[in-house]
Amino acid sequence: MMDVSLGVVLDAARKKAPLVHCVTNYVTAHEVANAILASGGRPIMADDPAEAVEIASAADALLLNVGTPCRRTAEAMRLAGRKAMELGRPIVLDPVGAGASRLRTETSRALVSELHPAVIRGNISEVLALAQGVGATRGVDAAAADAVTEANLAQKALFARRVARETGAVMAISGVLDLVADADTCVVLRNGCARMGGVTGCGCMLTGLVAVFAAAFPESSLAATVAAVAAMGVAGEIAEARLRPDEGHATFGLRIVDALSLLDGKTLEKGARCEFL
Amino acid sequence: MMDVSLGVVLDAARKKAPLVHCVTNYVTAHEVANAILASGGRPIMADDPAEAVEIASAADALLLNVGTPCRRTAEAMRLAGRKAMELGRPIVLDPVGAGASRLRTETSRALVSELHPAVIRGNISEVLALAQGVGATRGVDAAAADAVTEANLAQKALFARRVARETGAVMAISGVLDLVADADTCVVLRNGCARMGGVTGCGCMLTGLVAVFAAAFPESSLAATVAAVAAMGVAGEIAEARLRPDEGHATFGLRIVDALSLLDGKTLEKGARCEFL
Amino acid sequence: MMDVSLGVVLDAARKKAPLVHCVTNYVTAHEVANAILASGGRPIMADDPAEAVEIASAADALLLNVGTPCRRTAEAMRLAGRKAMELGRPIVLDPVGAGASRLRTETSRALVSELHPAVIRGNISEVLALAQGVGATRGVDAAAADAVTEANLAQKALFARRVARETGAVMAISGVLDLVADADTCVVLRNGCARMGGVTGCGCMLTGLVAVFAAAFPESSLAATVAAVAAMGVAGEIAEARLRPDEGHATFGLRIVDALSLLDGKTLEKGARCEFL
Repeated sequence: MMDVSLGVVLDAARKKAPLVHCVTNYVTAHEVANAILASGGRPIMADDPAEAVEIASAADALLLNVGTPCRRTAEAMRLAGRKAMELGRPIVLDPVGAGASRLRTETSRALVSELHPAVIRGNISEVLALAQGVGATRGVDAAAADAVTEANLAQKALFARRVARETGAVMAISGVLDLVADADTCVVLRNGCARMGGVTGCGCMLTGLVAVFAAAFPESSLAATVAAVAAMGVAGEIAEARLRPDEGHATFGLRIVDALSLLDGKTLEKGARCEFL
Repeated sequence: MMDVSLGVVLDAARKKAPLVHCVTNYVTAHEVANAILASGGRPIMADDPAEAVEIASAADALLLNVGTPCRRTAEAMRLAGRKAMELGRPIVLDPVGAGASRLRTETSRALVSELHPAVIRGNISEVLALAQGVGATRGVDAAAADAVTEANLAQKALFARRVARETGAVMAISGVLDLVADADTCVVLRNGCARMGGVTGCGCMLTGLVAVFAAAFPESSLAATVAAVAAMGVAGEIAEARLRPDEGHATFGLRIVDALSLLDGKTLEKGARCEFL
Repeated sequence: MMDVSLGVVLDAARKKAPLVHCVTNYVTAHEVANAILASGGRPIMADDPAEAVEIASAADALLLNVGTPCRRTAEAMRLAGRKAMELGRPIVLDPVGAGASRLRTETSRALVSELHPAVIRGNISEVLALAQGVGATRGVDAAAADAVTEANLAQKALFARRVARETGAVMAISGVLDLVADADTCVVLRNGCARMGGVTGCGCMLTGLVAVFAAAFPESSLAATVAAVAAMGVAGEIAEARLRPDEGHATFGLRIVDALSLLDGKTLEKGARCEFL
């Protein structure tokens, strides 16, 4: 698979400027839109069943994010998703808070089985809830007990590949260590920094990047997803390196988007710390 | 018409602090609120039919933005709009994504014919969709083929004036070149910079400014709109001039709001590049 | 009551990292989430009746903010609130725009009488509307005539204590002078700066802090609320002190969140200007 350099994916995104239809939560919608623009894509947020099919028809990718779910937007996700499937456009799912409520777990699972997303991007607890149909997550952060660590890496990689095989999706599992897997391959990425957990929307923005890259690089959803995870991590590192002692969470979040907008293929490749497992 | 200086409009906004009732999309609601505050107005976001009439009654202007449309908010727009009409308060319409879905095109056209907005602010593709009832826009950006350029300026100015005559609204058409027109007059503005297209919400924020200025300067919606377009463009130029090489999209967006909040009449007049066509 | 130092409350928040379930408006949802993270808590936004009970069950506090109200989210507030009551978790109410529409006034009053919030945080006009059942507020800012001043401080303190007695809630009344009162005690805080009125979401963010601190310091809702109001005011002062002449509203807002994320107990105690009335 990964006989492609990550910079080629980023360059393709900036060149093709794919249109990403987002059905997403209102908390981070603005950040997701900005992350999509910063990485070369063009966002359109549209979450009503009355226009879901039409917007999905025109878009190059569909992003479904189940944060702040409700019946109306879940219906829009389903309608948009069927159209995207029919047209062969990549669907990227972010199961925000799967495991924290039955609504989120079941909505996410239904979207997986009905729409066969190309990529699923979540934290380890969300992915466990997706895989098992239940979860014990409190809130939208991963439970500490679930975390991917250097010690359990081999076992978690097998888990990621198994879920990838079962869902047919590339799995992107975010955490201190990031995993990206399809049925056959798992890549671990060691980019990013702990401070990113203190900024609302880093996960949602990453899902935006995945959608842009998956649309721009149809040759390999796995390579596109690795490039997106690496880009987000490298952007986080650049943002942290620039942070002065009197600057905090909000400036850090701003600088991540800045770094994404300035990122070029060379910097991405030099900064990415990926390893095949 | 324009026998008034733009600085007078800005000063009136800062002095009168008009209350702007916004029925707007959730993606840029926060940015619109901040832009309204930065330009001297006071925002209130209220999008439910159950309070639309009451909020509109108290407000000095009504902003209707059809990004992320749904039935509930469209109904609120209609109810608020009728009350604003009855009270003679300016209505400012932003037909986000008109041409990208029938829902947006038809909602926008219905609002124009029912509510007779004082000003309509959109990009050229959105305005074409409004005028023609159909559109071939993909997403929320203008199609390249539609763009207003120095070469087709005279023809586009006639188009802007024709739509202004047909709708009874001042038309503000945003792009590399901005046009502001009523039935008799068209002004081209050459402020702003390309980077503004990379920041989510610049168009929505501009519509917020138009609403503030139209409420503060009832003498001329045309002058108020020219002042708003000039203010946004000058703020964009100030923000760009301050941008360091290691700063990107997000910092640029922040600095636009900063520049708006610091803008005074003298700087606006000195920076505005308007020409009557 | 206040035989506890404010720094202890902040330290408890950072140590316990309480999960705050927010049913809140879409305009400032992102800022509220970031303020909660910056002060040591963890936010989850969930506003649908279908998951309200489940999310509230897992959370350590419930934040109800009636900005951008609608029937669906009001129902979610009621369901989440009953569960939080049953479990003895603190409920914090922000009656945004009470007095500006019957929907907001009546929704807020119903939530007070049904759910007995631990803390109510609003501006003076909103609190008057809550207490009187009617209001003449235009928009979401306090009316100038209602303002708490050094001249009417004693009388306003009695009012705050009376509303606290009637509602059973700690009252936090924001303005140039901030009041925090229970039935027996009223504290005036002289922190913050006028510029904070120009930034969308300062009030909503403060309510987020109150929820974090109330969950982290169950010993005294009054002390928790005083600490939150002081923290917000001190953060505003730090942000203002760092502001350069060419920086405006948006940078100021960013720096408030920065300052919150960097605030420690010692700085909070040194900076807080509280007086018992």
